[in-house]
Amino acid sequence: MAADSRTNAGVDYISSYKKLFDLSLPEERAIIICTSGNLSVSQGVLTRLNRDIQNQEEKSLHTLGNMYDVAQYIGNKSREIQELDRQWLEKDNIDSRCNFLLAGQIKGEAPQLYLIYPQGNFIQATPETPFLQIGETKYGKPILDRTITYNTPLEDVAKCALLSLDSTMKSNISVGPPINLVMYETDSFDIRHKLELRLGAPYIAKIRKLWEQSVRQAFEAMPDIEWKQESSELEEDVLID
Amino acid sequence: MAADSRTNAGVDYISSYKKLFDLSLPEERAIIICTSGNLSVSQGVLTRLNRDIQNQEEKSLHTLGNMYDVAQYIGNKSREIQELDRQWLEKDNIDSRCNFLLAGQIKGEAPQLYLIYPQGNFIQATPETPFLQIGETKYGKPILDRTITYNTPLEDVAKCALLSLDSTMKSNISVGPPINLVMYETDSFDIRHKLELRLGAPYIAKIRKLWEQSVRQAFEAMPDIEWKQESSELEEDVLID
Repeated sequence: MAADSRTNAGVDYISSYKKLFDLSLPEERAIIICTSGNLSVSQGVLTRLNRDIQNQEEKSLHTLGNMYDVAQYIGNKSREIQELDRQWLEKDNIDSRCNFLLAGQIKGEAPQLYLIYPQGNFIQATPETPFLQIGETKYGKPILDRTITYNTPLEDVAKCALLSLDSTMKSNISVGPPINLVMYETDSFDIRHKLELRLGAPYIAKIRKLWEQSVRQAFEAMPDIEWKQESSELEEDVLID
Repeated sequence: MAADSRTNAGVDYISSYKKLFDLSLPEERAIIICTSGNLSVSQGVLTRLNRDIQNQEEKSLHTLGNMYDVAQYIGNKSREIQELDRQWLEKDNIDSRCNFLLAGQIKGEAPQLYLIYPQGNFIQATPETPFLQIGETKYGKPILDRTITYNTPLEDVAKCALLSLDSTMKSNISVGPPINLVMYETDSFDIRHKLELRLGAPYIAKIRKLWEQSVRQAFEAMPDIEWKQESSELEEDVLID
């Protein structure tokens, strides 16, 4: 799981908030949540998730018996906050929508990855669609589409996630560092690999440079375009073709 | 200038329409227009632009003295159609917005590139921002951001435009072939290089394969991530960090 930290409420109010949260119960369950969308809603949801853990509620991220129920529980928390705030936000045309990614593994189950929609419903990643994205997803999707399959080795997936986020940062100011990255190994029930890459981190600079060189090389290696030679004889065709 | 040909009115109504039009007056002026957005509006605008040429109106793409005035004239045509249709479209929440790219050269001027907004106002490309995009722009922007500068040779720019469109086609079903591409050389006052690449065109298959190989190589060459080793000691930190 990887996330940037940029939030904005218009270009004149840009700030930094983490969007990746480790809510694991080590040795028993690994739970990572990423957020996108309205910050007051996502913070509210996270606070309530943490409060239920701390208050040792019957239902919490640390007690629910399977990931499907965890996804439903997070969806319900999101609906709770929306019931409180949504009509007030709508009065000023403020978007209250929020997406969540939920990844992890509960003992007795396989590792799972869910995307929880603003409406509180959710979908699960499958072998055919092995990655899910939320937030500013388009810039970084081509890299993922061309490299990630269900069988891609874990370390390669991590690099690819970083490249995808870096591409997005380069093309869109609404995405920015630090980047948070965690890597989870099946049946470890603990998040052993974490990384926070701040602005100017040498690793980011290194992969960015390498990537830019590769892109340029690739595109220099491309065969020349075989133009269909046109001449003014065709000027009758006002529309091309 | 390059454009795909996919239009859709929802996933159950996908069809093919050209979005790149050569309206040049050979030996005197080169004028290429690309469109995105509501098809009835963009077709209406194109029809009116052609009609003014055919009727030898005082103001047309073939008579206006400079590209700035041409951009304003196209913006005004777009406003005309919107005045006719917009309130009817809005009744059914149909988006009437339409963007245009205008590129070319009129004798006596330097070549110019404009983006005309749905509101009829427009901006011009500059040495700092040498390319403009309309429509489904995000997937293809990272490749352009990393390769195109004001001084990139023309043939390289053409390849890069193809790669950018191909990336977008791979990641989004709302973009599809045929791809239309034209290349204009300053002071030629004629479009001498045109290309239409249909579904399954060998060149597209070739560059797609080459590009995918390069992306994979680049990303295999990336240095390993230097993980900050975390252990369960840090479990107190419910939020990462």
